[in-house]
Amino acid sequence: MEGITSKTNPLIKRYVRLRDSKKARCEEGCFVLETAKLLQEAVGAEVPIETLLVTEQAADQQADLLERLAQKGTRFFCISAAIEEKLTKTANAGGLFAIAAMPSPPSLWETMQQGGRLLYLCQLQDSGNVGTILRTALALGLSGIILSADCCDRYSLKVLRASMGAAFKLPLWISQDPVADLTRLQERFTAYAAVVDADAESVTSCLFAEDRIVVIGNEGNGLPPAVVQCCRQRITIPMDGAAESLNASMAAGILMWELMKR
Amino acid sequence: MEGITSKTNPLIKRYVRLRDSKKARCEEGCFVLETAKLLQEAVGAEVPIETLLVTEQAADQQADLLERLAQKGTRFFCISAAIEEKLTKTANAGGLFAIAAMPSPPSLWETMQQGGRLLYLCQLQDSGNVGTILRTALALGLSGIILSADCCDRYSLKVLRASMGAAFKLPLWISQDPVADLTRLQERFTAYAAVVDADAESVTSCLFAEDRIVVIGNEGNGLPPAVVQCCRQRITIPMDGAAESLNASMAAGILMWELMKR
Repeated sequence: MEGITSKTNPLIKRYVRLRDSKKARCEEGCFVLETAKLLQEAVGAEVPIETLLVTEQAADQQADLLERLAQKGTRFFCISAAIEEKLTKTANAGGLFAIAAMPSPPSLWETMQQGGRLLYLCQLQDSGNVGTILRTALALGLSGIILSADCCDRYSLKVLRASMGAAFKLPLWISQDPVADLTRLQERFTAYAAVVDADAESVTSCLFAEDRIVVIGNEGNGLPPAVVQCCRQRITIPMDGAAESLNASMAAGILMWELMKR
Repeated sequence: MEGITSKTNPLIKRYVRLRDSKKARCEEGCFVLETAKLLQEAVGAEVPIETLLVTEQAADQQADLLERLAQKGTRFFCISAAIEEKLTKTANAGGLFAIAAMPSPPSLWETMQQGGRLLYLCQLQDSGNVGTILRTALALGLSGIILSADCCDRYSLKVLRASMGAAFKLPLWISQDPVADLTRLQERFTAYAAVVDADAESVTSCLFAEDRIVVIGNEGNGLPPAVVQCCRQRITIPMDGAAESLNASMAAGILMWELMKR
């Protein structure tokens, strides 16, 4: 295995650029991932792993994983402790740093033909929230998730890690124009705008259409009025005190739970 | 207002000790809080604020809050930028650092006479999870929460901040002996042990008793077998794939939602 010891090695600089910049990820169509857990999830979901940077210790511990990657054509490079320190962004990366190619996104309009139960995330900014929502959506069995283009990046390491690999398994689409896309989706689906408003229909009494989308807005500002208006109905989670609130991922979790139950 | 400029001032050292050490908090019966939001929640919940360390800028911006505190007998000290930096543990503290007295805990056995819908958290270790669960419990209207003594400290700054003040408003009890306390509580309540097991009763079909407690275990290890055994029934959240999972606060949120609905 070829070794890399210089922090100015072009591959190391590329990894850091892909790790830190959404723009770099978009331009290259590549993203980075770390930890054996995320790598296993990615391999299991047929995500192409182009390059693996690995410490000697991690290569020993994860021999089976490296074997699987070798069969799929991944290139390996051995890195020193100093490089490991430079690449590590989050805790417990475990000496494994990969560059992967983004799978080509499925067509949203093909999905439309199949119907199902979707969540539309509009302008969500917190990576931890988005990752947790993806993980929950997969566990509860949603058909897929649509993210508005101004949500935080689904390929950021923080989203990937909080999603526990769900980001690789769940169908995800990016929507450039929420109003136009929701309007077109409503040729088949019925869209429900989640709002914090005691006068909106309670999610517990709402009679959902068979093919349905729940639309959730930004952590602080909620949904833009134009997006609420283009949805068929406004729904809300009834709460005990007017002053209390749920955090964004918890509210999304309860809405998904109800979306899938009935 | 008296000024403090020395980092070795006894009051500054006391604040840091209370901020960082559960043992110090237990011994003194005091805890620390920061941010205008948390202070307002504490004042609203009649938590006695003994001392406020405040920057000149924050004192100007929060004149109303300081006025309210002055009426309740809080002592004020003006701190320099260097002290502010030393006291700040989390982001955006906003130049307000308070030492508060722990309210005396309500008697668990008095509560037993009233019945209700409770959550029992057994050995939860993540402060963010516990804070989010408290916030959700308050929003959904639970009667109260019981924490086993080996949960993370409800008076840690991370729990308080993630709870968004719910830790001051929701009745909370500490249980030294889960099996003994749950056994005694079942003279009035019925306890349901939340487990990850497809063979357990689904939370959607469980016929809950009127006075009920859901018992939730540690993030990684779940509930100790003896705790599961002393509960009336095992319940579970049905999930799509066997390999998928919910994070601890999301699972608790969905269980609380069902606990309150029926």
